Amino acid sequence: MAQLIVGIDVGGTKVAGGLVNQKGKLLKSLIVPTRADKGFKASYAQITHLIERLIHMAGGKHQIGGIGICAPGPLNPHTGVIINPPNLPGWRNIPLASLIQKRFDLPAKVENDANAAGLGEVLFGAAVGYRDVFYVTVSTGIGTGIIIGKKIYHGKNGVAGEGGHVSIDYRSPYRCGCGTLGCIEALAAGPGMARRARVYLEQEHNEPSLLREMTRGHLELISPQMLEQAMRQGDRAARAVIEETGFYLGVWLGGMLTLFDPEAVVIGGGVARIGKPLFQKIRETIPQYSINRAFAAKLPLLPAKLQKNVGVYGAASIFLPAGEEAETN
Amino acid sequence: MAQLIVGIDVGGTKVAGGLVNQKGKLLKSLIVPTRADKGFKASYAQITHLIERLIHMAGGKHQIGGIGICAPGPLNPHTGVIINPPNLPGWRNIPLASLIQKRFDLPAKVENDANAAGLGEVLFGAAVGYRDVFYVTVSTGIGTGIIIGKKIYHGKNGVAGEGGHVSIDYRSPYRCGCGTLGCIEALAAGPGMARRARVYLEQEHNEPSLLREMTRGHLELISPQMLEQAMRQGDRAARAVIEETGFYLGVWLGGMLTLFDPEAVVIGGGVARIGKPLFQKIRETIPQYSINRAFAAKLPLLPAKLQKNVGVYGAASIFLPAGEEAETN
Repeated sequence: MAQLIVGIDVGGTKVAGGLVNQKGKLLKSLIVPTRADKGFKASYAQITHLIERLIHMAGGKHQIGGIGICAPGPLNPHTGVIINPPNLPGWRNIPLASLIQKRFDLPAKVENDANAAGLGEVLFGAAVGYRDVFYVTVSTGIGTGIIIGKKIYHGKNGVAGEGGHVSIDYRSPYRCGCGTLGCIEALAAGPGMARRARVYLEQEHNEPSLLREMTRGHLELISPQMLEQAMRQGDRAARAVIEETGFYLGVWLGGMLTLFDPEAVVIGGGVARIGKPLFQKIRETIPQYSINRAFAAKLPLLPAKLQKNVGVYGAASIFLPAGEEAETN
Repeated sequence: MAQLIVGIDVGGTKVAGGLVNQKGKLLKSLIVPTRADKGFKASYAQITHLIERLIHMAGGKHQIGGIGICAPGPLNPHTGVIINPPNLPGWRNIPLASLIQKRFDLPAKVENDANAAGLGEVLFGAAVGYRDVFYVTVSTGIGTGIIIGKKIYHGKNGVAGEGGHVSIDYRSPYRCGCGTLGCIEALAAGPGMARRARVYLEQEHNEPSLLREMTRGHLELISPQMLEQAMRQGDRAARAVIEETGFYLGVWLGGMLTLFDPEAVVIGGGVARIGKPLFQKIRETIPQYSINRAFAAKLPLLPAKLQKNVGVYGAASIFLPAGEEAETN
C-alpha cells in the first residue's frame, strides 16, 4: 500500500503541514499562526496538534510512512536536534525528531529549511530530471542547499550548504548577522538591498527618487517591495540598487559554479520574484566570475516552482521514494 | 591475486610513474623529463614507454588492475579527454584514457591532478580515516579537490572543484589567468605573493627590506622562496606579505567550510611549506570568515603527506580498493 508522508514546515510566524503522496502530490495542507518567539512549548503543542489532524485526515497512523520536519537552522539532521535558530528564539537544543518519533511512534526526521526546499525542487519542482543542483532562496536571508545525486549534502556536522554566509568581499562595510564581513546575505538579501538603497540616497542628496516620496524622506523605511515598485515606475536609483544586487549574486554564483559544476541552479524567494532586471544582471555576471565561461553561460538558471508550499514539500521529500531511490544509486 | 595499479603523473616538465599495490604502497617509481610544450606526440611516446617499463617490472599485463593518469586540467574524467590545459600546450582534445586503454588493453582513466592528489591524501596520506575532505595545493597555482564519501566530486561536466578560481574580492586589482578578478589563486599562489611583495615595496620606497638586496633592486625577480628566506631572517615586509597570504587563504577557506563542512582540510604544495607564520594566520582567519566558528576553530588543518609522489599515488588511487569500496557505500 502506498503510504503518505506528513511534511511540517516550522517557521517563526507560522507552522504549515501537509500530506504528500509517493508521487509528490500535496493532498491536504493546513497552516496555523505561531509565535515561535514565545518559546518552544507553545509551538510544540501546535506542531503536534497539526500532525494529529493530518494523521487523522490520512485515515490513521498505519497510512503514514514518516514525518518530515523542516525548520530554520542551525540544526543537526543527523541527530534531529534543533540547535539555536535565530528565527526560533527560545528553541535551544531541542531533540525534535526523537520527541516526534516517540510521540507518534512513526519515523521522524528534521532538516534545514533551505536544504529541504532544494530537495523538494529537485524531486517535485523546477529541477525535476536533474541530480546535482545548487538551490538558493533570496528573501530576508539567503538560504542555500547543495543537492548531489538527488540527496542533500550535509557535511560532517550537518551544517554544510550555508552558501548565504560565504563572503564575496572580505573588506565590505557590511557585516552579516553571522559575524562575517561581506557575506552575500549581508549584501543581497532584502534587508541588505534596502540598506544599500538608503546609503546610496543619503549620499546622493540631489538625486531625485520615488523612494524619497514613498518613505516621506524616512529612508530607513525602504523595503525590497518599494524598490521593486519604484524600479517598475522607472526610478533610476531603485534600478541601480537592484542591478547591483544582481551583480553581487552573479559574482557569488560564479564561484558556486566553479566549485560545484551543477546541472542547474534554482532560484527562489521573495527577492528573486523581482524578476527580469535582477535575473538579467545575474546571468550576465556569472560567466565573468566563473572559470568555465562556456558552461556557465549555458547553465540552466531556473526560477523555483513550489512557491508557498515549498517547506511542506521539502519536509516531506526527506521521506519520499525518489529520495530513497537516490540513496541506493 | 592482488593486482598492482600503474599511476602516471603527467606534468609540464616531467612524467612520473609508479606501481602501487592494493594497500597503497608505492613499490616502484620512475621519472622522465619531458617537454610538454613540444606538443602531444613526443610526450605521448614517453608516457607509453614509461607504462611499458612499469608493466614489465610488475611481471606482465595480467598483474595490472588499471592505469590511472593524472594531468593538469581542464580535462573530462567522464570521457577521459584532456581538453586544453595551459600547462600542456599543444594538447588539445586528446582522448588519453581511450588511447592508453586500446594501446595496453587495460582499463585506463584520467583525472585532474589536484582531484587525484586529494583522493590520494584521503586514501593513503594525511587524511586517512576521513571521508569528506577539502584538499588544496598552493604553489604556482592553487588546485583543489572536493572529496565526498572518499570519492572525488566531479560535477556535471567533470570540472567541479576548481576552488582556486573562486573570487574573494570582486573588485581586486589582480586578475587571474582564468579571467576572473580576485581569485584566490591570483592573490595567494606563488606568483601572486611575489607580485604583492613587489607592489608593496615599490610603494613603500623608504622601507628597507632584504628583498631589495636579494634582487639587487630588481623587485620583479622576487620569488616565494626569497620571501620565505627573508622572513626567516626577520624581514618585516616579507612577513607582512606572507601573513597577508595567510589572511586571504583563511578568508577563502572560511567560505569553503561554510559550504562543505568537511571533516578535515589538507594543505599541500610548495607555498604551504612556508610553514608556521602562514598556517598561523590561516588558522586565525578561518573562524572569522566561517559561519560555524566553533566547528571552524576545531577543524583539522592537515599538512599534505604524500609530497613528491603525490601525483603517482593520486593517479593510482582512482583504481584502488578503498576508492572502489567507497563507490558502494
